[in-house]
Amino acid sequence: MKVLWLFAHPEPASLNAALRDEGLRALRELGHEYVQSDLYEMKWDPIVREIASFDPDVVAEQEKISWADTLVVQFPLWWYGMPAILKGWFDRVFVKGFGYGLKDENGRVLRYGEGMLAGKRAMIVTTAGGRASSLGPRGVNGNLEQLLFPLQHGTFWYTGMAALPPFVVYSADRTDAAEFTAAASGLRERLARLETTEPIPYRAQNGGDYDSDLVLLPHLAAGRTDLDVHQR
Amino acid sequence: MKVLWLFAHPEPASLNAALRDEGLRALRELGHEYVQSDLYEMKWDPIVREIASFDPDVVAEQEKISWADTLVVQFPLWWYGMPAILKGWFDRVFVKGFGYGLKDENGRVLRYGEGMLAGKRAMIVTTAGGRASSLGPRGVNGNLEQLLFPLQHGTFWYTGMAALPPFVVYSADRTDAAEFTAAASGLRERLARLETTEPIPYRAQNGGDYDSDLVLLPHLAAGRTDLDVHQR
Repeated sequence: MKVLWLFAHPEPASLNAALRDEGLRALRELGHEYVQSDLYEMKWDPIVREIASFDPDVVAEQEKISWADTLVVQFPLWWYGMPAILKGWFDRVFVKGFGYGLKDENGRVLRYGEGMLAGKRAMIVTTAGGRASSLGPRGVNGNLEQLLFPLQHGTFWYTGMAALPPFVVYSADRTDAAEFTAAASGLRERLARLETTEPIPYRAQNGGDYDSDLVLLPHLAAGRTDLDVHQR
Repeated sequence: MKVLWLFAHPEPASLNAALRDEGLRALRELGHEYVQSDLYEMKWDPIVREIASFDPDVVAEQEKISWADTLVVQFPLWWYGMPAILKGWFDRVFVKGFGYGLKDENGRVLRYGEGMLAGKRAMIVTTAGGRASSLGPRGVNGNLEQLLFPLQHGTFWYTGMAALPPFVVYSADRTDAAEFTAAASGLRERLARLETTEPIPYRAQNGGDYDSDLVLLPHLAAGRTDLDVHQR
């Protein structure tokens, strides 16, 4: 496989950096090719100054995406989302004409399962300070899979990429050596199954599940209004 | 009231900037005091380079927050979240010891309704390209109130601030003069009720609704796992 590994953590001595090193080693051993975008190391500029601008640094990232069949997006969870440097990678790289604003010859909007990046896969690798229970289905911090919806559904799936279930390390600011070993081993195991893991079964916009106002048809997930209704 | 108005849009001629101007004019007419942080105009640096750093620009923003009783956070919705420059305002300003990591004298963690910013109010003002139906309860883009959960619950409420329902302009990239007038009028009306609007009734972490693993007690919103279970 051809993997683009996005990495966004400021500390080279962090748990995240150690996990990244493990991950890239695993990809080599699996015989996959990869390129890395280490956003801090690249001094990535995350600020959109002009809407729809194709600057050379943006085009370089778009070329990496076009080359890759799989994106791994690794970051520490800050305020229940991506660090700014990474959010601004999507803001700038997924520009109109690349990430959105695409139509077919009949004027049909191509997104949510269709679009420039259809056929690729994307997986989040993240670390959270909270315990697993606090980010679980009824945990006080909110169900992590739903907190990640803007990235997994609203960005990956929007641009056509199938979102694989995230790989998460909980209680990450108090991980001991044994826990790190377990996390590294879990990550290697997930990377070994990159090609075969079932994606999150999000519904296609043009798959017949939504009406002309883009509202889910009433008989599907009837009566519910949670974000999981957008899964088949 | 004392309002801190956060503004994050790169174009001075944008719908967002025009709405901001209307909003600040309304605050003056209502007799409220305000300060504005126009992040693009300030050339705000959104990148955390060192964890838990109290740089002078960070301290200046913290002082504005301490002065204010209300935050208005205005941004265009990009990839279902904040522009990077704004995300990095929270990443840098809501640092450990200010935004989180606080305990009382008995070691009880102060967050979700308690903390440094308890007693203040915060309101999102945002513009979305999508139609209202597509961001409604069963719209293809996801229920907007749930997409905003990381900011409204995971950031505002986490640090103690009551989150007011957001003010949203839909179909914002194709707004005509009449629609702008309606939006401006809607915003003025919301600002006139800043003090009296009922906040989103999020549950307090220490209010008796969560167990010692920080999981919602089984009899509350029984059987549900959506993000709205965290509302009373």
